[in-house]
Amino acid sequence: MTVETVSENRSFGGRQLVCRHRSSETGTDMRFSLYLPPAAESGPVPLVWFLSGLTCTEENFTTKAGAQRVAAKHGLAVVAPDTSPRGETVPDDADAAYDFGLGAGFYVDATAAPFDRNYRMASYIETELPEVLAGAFPVDGRRQSIMGHSMGGHGALTIALRNPDRYKAVSAFAPIASPINCPWGQKALSGYLGRDEAEWRRYDACALIEDGHRVGDILVDQGLADGFLENQLKPELLEAACGKAGIPLTLRRQEGYDHSYFFIATFVEDHLDWHAERLTSEG
Amino acid sequence: MTVETVSENRSFGGRQLVCRHRSSETGTDMRFSLYLPPAAESGPVPLVWFLSGLTCTEENFTTKAGAQRVAAKHGLAVVAPDTSPRGETVPDDADAAYDFGLGAGFYVDATAAPFDRNYRMASYIETELPEVLAGAFPVDGRRQSIMGHSMGGHGALTIALRNPDRYKAVSAFAPIASPINCPWGQKALSGYLGRDEAEWRRYDACALIEDGHRVGDILVDQGLADGFLENQLKPELLEAACGKAGIPLTLRRQEGYDHSYFFIATFVEDHLDWHAERLTSEG
Repeated sequence: MTVETVSENRSFGGRQLVCRHRSSETGTDMRFSLYLPPAAESGPVPLVWFLSGLTCTEENFTTKAGAQRVAAKHGLAVVAPDTSPRGETVPDDADAAYDFGLGAGFYVDATAAPFDRNYRMASYIETELPEVLAGAFPVDGRRQSIMGHSMGGHGALTIALRNPDRYKAVSAFAPIASPINCPWGQKALSGYLGRDEAEWRRYDACALIEDGHRVGDILVDQGLADGFLENQLKPELLEAACGKAGIPLTLRRQEGYDHSYFFIATFVEDHLDWHAERLTSEG
Repeated sequence: MTVETVSENRSFGGRQLVCRHRSSETGTDMRFSLYLPPAAESGPVPLVWFLSGLTCTEENFTTKAGAQRVAAKHGLAVVAPDTSPRGETVPDDADAAYDFGLGAGFYVDATAAPFDRNYRMASYIETELPEVLAGAFPVDGRRQSIMGHSMGGHGALTIALRNPDRYKAVSAFAPIASPINCPWGQKALSGYLGRDEAEWRRYDACALIEDGHRVGDILVDQGLADGFLENQLKPELLEAACGKAGIPLTLRRQEGYDHSYFFIATFVEDHLDWHAERLTSEG
């Protein structure tokens, strides 16, 4: 598997890369950004995954979150994948809406035509890209953790719940707590998976918890001025599911914060501190 | 003078604003971004100016530099103006090149037609916008400082040298040290000011220093992997001028860093620390 470097910039003593590779899962070229901290010069470092939200590419988190400073401090690599396959041959939403298709892969393996051919973001994130990274960069596959924002918060929670031994920490910024129970999720899951809601449960954090999946603990920040809070994000559903299952959830409701990267940038240090603690205590 | 809020986002406990107002200097609507730290809730705070480089608007520094965290820490407001007048009636480069006209005001007051009508960025930054800000926001006009990047580094240095009592600190990231002596500068100054090079000297940091202008001290960071270093930026000219004039210049040549916002983000904390020290020691 060849990984091509699209750009490289020095950042906080480390290397901020944007890379491209051919994905066998999606059948397309895929891009990701990868920050390698100064510590990666002397050996493999823990790897933090950041899954982005609707409309994003690998670029948003990389240029706007200010994560490199904190990653350098802790000696963490941070990978930010794209949010969907892309290209002229990849089917999109019929109306080119922002919440389905391109930029909106929802971290599922689609089973409904025509999306099943390319939209395999679950396997891409869980299986293919980890192997690509391990083969090409000094990252330690035994020390991984995962976080994300909005649709990517949903991705981080569900991927961690399905793979609890893989990720030593999980957190989210304003995650879609239960796609089954919100318009964004219902549109995406029906479009990618079809109408059988039983098939949707492995892509819903609350349903996974109800079905017995567990993680050690979860950190979530949620802005109270977030316009998507009530109708789409619904952190109270995650709170209820974690409460019932006995999963320690640190849910911080942040007064005045919205859904933007200004919100993420404000709290990314808290999240990376949380991840570093869990990644290095078992290292 | 009415200031309209285009957007507001909470950031590190403060307010990140983007605003629009009618400028009498440029004859156009102008936009700027303004970060107000938590300390501004209880009274006027010092104001740091950040002048951006070629092609930038008020957005680049605001979303990519990570300055809000440090500004909140020190209780500093940070304003990032746009880099030129804009609009359908504003004359642009004949070839719509990136280095003249829109996005490339060079912080001069143009005297050559047709640019003299709108391109009055020197007076806009030095006179009009400070009054607008003082009238609308809790910023302390007696405690101002200025920094910038590339073309904006040139802007910061020249504006500080022409107004040494106004700005308590000045610094720059990869500034155009001497526009008179580089292709970007020669194109801009001849286009905005005409062919009489004597008129150019008030917009050239090295010439201003040669002509007797002084500031207390200067901090400059320059990446050594910056593709514009040799032909456009030429920090050695500033080093020579400061050396001859006895102006303490801290010029840090940073191995591996390029001209991007990853470079700025890496060192913005050092710059804001430098500014805070000079803004608060005399406060």
